[in-house]
Amino acid sequence: MPDLRKDPIVGRWVIIAKNRAKRPQEFSVLPSRPDITFCPFCEGQEDKTPGEIIAYRREGSQPNGKDWRVRVVPNKFPALKVEGELSKKGEGIYDMMEGVGAHEVIIETPDHVVSTSDLSEEQLCEVLWVYRDRLVDLKKDRRLVYGMIFKNVGAAAGASLEHTHSQLIVTPIVPINVSEEMAGSLEFYNYRGRCICCDMIQRELAVEDRIVMDTPGFIAFCPFASRFPFETWILPKAHSSHYENIQKNGVEDLANTLRHVIAKIEAALDQPAYNYIIHTGPFDTEELGHYHWHIEIMPSLTRPAGFEWGTGFYINPVPPSEAAAFLREVEVDFRESRNNPTRRAGQGGV
Amino acid sequence: MPDLRKDPIVGRWVIIAKNRAKRPQEFSVLPSRPDITFCPFCEGQEDKTPGEIIAYRREGSQPNGKDWRVRVVPNKFPALKVEGELSKKGEGIYDMMEGVGAHEVIIETPDHVVSTSDLSEEQLCEVLWVYRDRLVDLKKDRRLVYGMIFKNVGAAAGASLEHTHSQLIVTPIVPINVSEEMAGSLEFYNYRGRCICCDMIQRELAVEDRIVMDTPGFIAFCPFASRFPFETWILPKAHSSHYENIQKNGVEDLANTLRHVIAKIEAALDQPAYNYIIHTGPFDTEELGHYHWHIEIMPSLTRPAGFEWGTGFYINPVPPSEAAAFLREVEVDFRESRNNPTRRAGQGGV
Repeated sequence: MPDLRKDPIVGRWVIIAKNRAKRPQEFSVLPSRPDITFCPFCEGQEDKTPGEIIAYRREGSQPNGKDWRVRVVPNKFPALKVEGELSKKGEGIYDMMEGVGAHEVIIETPDHVVSTSDLSEEQLCEVLWVYRDRLVDLKKDRRLVYGMIFKNVGAAAGASLEHTHSQLIVTPIVPINVSEEMAGSLEFYNYRGRCICCDMIQRELAVEDRIVMDTPGFIAFCPFASRFPFETWILPKAHSSHYENIQKNGVEDLANTLRHVIAKIEAALDQPAYNYIIHTGPFDTEELGHYHWHIEIMPSLTRPAGFEWGTGFYINPVPPSEAAAFLREVEVDFRESRNNPTRRAGQGGV
Repeated sequence: MPDLRKDPIVGRWVIIAKNRAKRPQEFSVLPSRPDITFCPFCEGQEDKTPGEIIAYRREGSQPNGKDWRVRVVPNKFPALKVEGELSKKGEGIYDMMEGVGAHEVIIETPDHVVSTSDLSEEQLCEVLWVYRDRLVDLKKDRRLVYGMIFKNVGAAAGASLEHTHSQLIVTPIVPINVSEEMAGSLEFYNYRGRCICCDMIQRELAVEDRIVMDTPGFIAFCPFASRFPFETWILPKAHSSHYENIQKNGVEDLANTLRHVIAKIEAALDQPAYNYIIHTGPFDTEELGHYHWHIEIMPSLTRPAGFEWGTGFYINPVPPSEAAAFLREVEVDFRESRNNPTRRAGQGGV
């Protein structure tokens, strides 16, 4: 069972996932790219993953068989486990609890492609909809309070498998980054009576120079205080605190925006590794006036080093207005990108 | 002039260092190792760096000439600049200020070696002493409030030059990580009347299983809530909030501890990239009862990915007690390590 341990000074939690432990020597080398010798996420390999939690599949097809479009399975090497009690305990001056939670993998397509931009708009709609389905289901478990959906693409962004997938980690406490976001947003709300993200949207649309895309329901921009070069955020224009309250037409608009923004980043920067993360409200809250869900997309171009680790400051060598101007102007052609052989692994049997 | 920009939601500051900007295409590839074709830090290349701020050198030798042992110079590509006024201003809903500060490089030896463990104990004493000298000098500038000393070794830890060096970035605001540490320590102090780090030292010495080294003046251990595999902290046993109050005999003891701990990490993990960071009190405070300066050493074995970026949680696959047991048992032989040809670059002219 993994431990959740709290840093006694700053209150940051750490998951000590003993079940992932290797021998010290095995940590000497960071893998330079994901393993592609065998892919457990491809159609026909359903028995290589734990049994599916949910799948969108052809009517009449069998669970854990072929003929699916999107498939959600437990992570084979979970950071947190769904069984067990939330036993909180002290160890001397330290606080810990058992690592109860959930760690799921969303396999986004049966085809061996590597990026969100390789999905059709219809496929991406189903991926975004299954995110919602899982959050709605998991928030019924009263032991759990937060669901973080994220995606790692490329070894430099932490991906260990190439086949395009996202992950959902559900934690029994609100993560420190989220509670800081909530606290900062609430402070602004109490002072100004408005949502800070709604204000940011107004400001960005007025100034224009950090906008990457402006669609009917969403805005994509490089934030004023971007930590990373080409960091891009996507926000719904209509205020909403919880991702899982998204509607079908919202998902279509979001799929269009997300797919284009990622394709633009990939075209501009020659297929970089990247992460995206959905920031959403905690399970134990209803619709909140002060919090605004959003997606943060971060290409892995720079490495955090001593200064960033020590201070929490980031040094970003690309002004966000320059990054946005560049991304606005990039043209993307999905047919070409999807058929680009460098984007599909030449794996046997796929 | 670089900008300092504040994230309006969480209050995190970012340095937008326009002077470091490159064209977007140049960000496509992360360098896999530092450039070693030419080294501006080697003896004889003094004119390739900005003029020295301070150097410990042979009596009678000329500034910016040969015959130095430790040399501190301004960073040629500074994240912050020492000239200018601290003009704070708003941009719509956003806050920013000019990037006033200092960014210095401590060249730790005239020889082209790559790690702290390649220095003799006498050399490391001088490095640790020059850290102190620079902090004492810079804190006289009333515009500046915090000095962060850190070291990046290896490309995976963010080093862009191989020759062993550390850096000092001085900021006009207290970094968010430091203010969180200060706040957490103060809360404990107000509640218990004791320094939390002094309590941690007692606890670690009593439990023993996370101790890496125990010397007369210092303790090195893998913290209970380690974020990273083999993360190791070094704390002075006697309470002290500001690194720059260290004495000559303290420096000798610290040099011995730091050099051994790093050599142990390097032997255990086959010369990993690593960072170390000195956490110390802000310039505008005197000796504080609640804050305890320390060094955090972090081998670069895992990469932060979407989950870490989103939550601020870390997943650490190696329990700290296992890491500490392993490091305790590693024997280090400095003569062998210093003569190891893989640890010296085969660069012309060195």
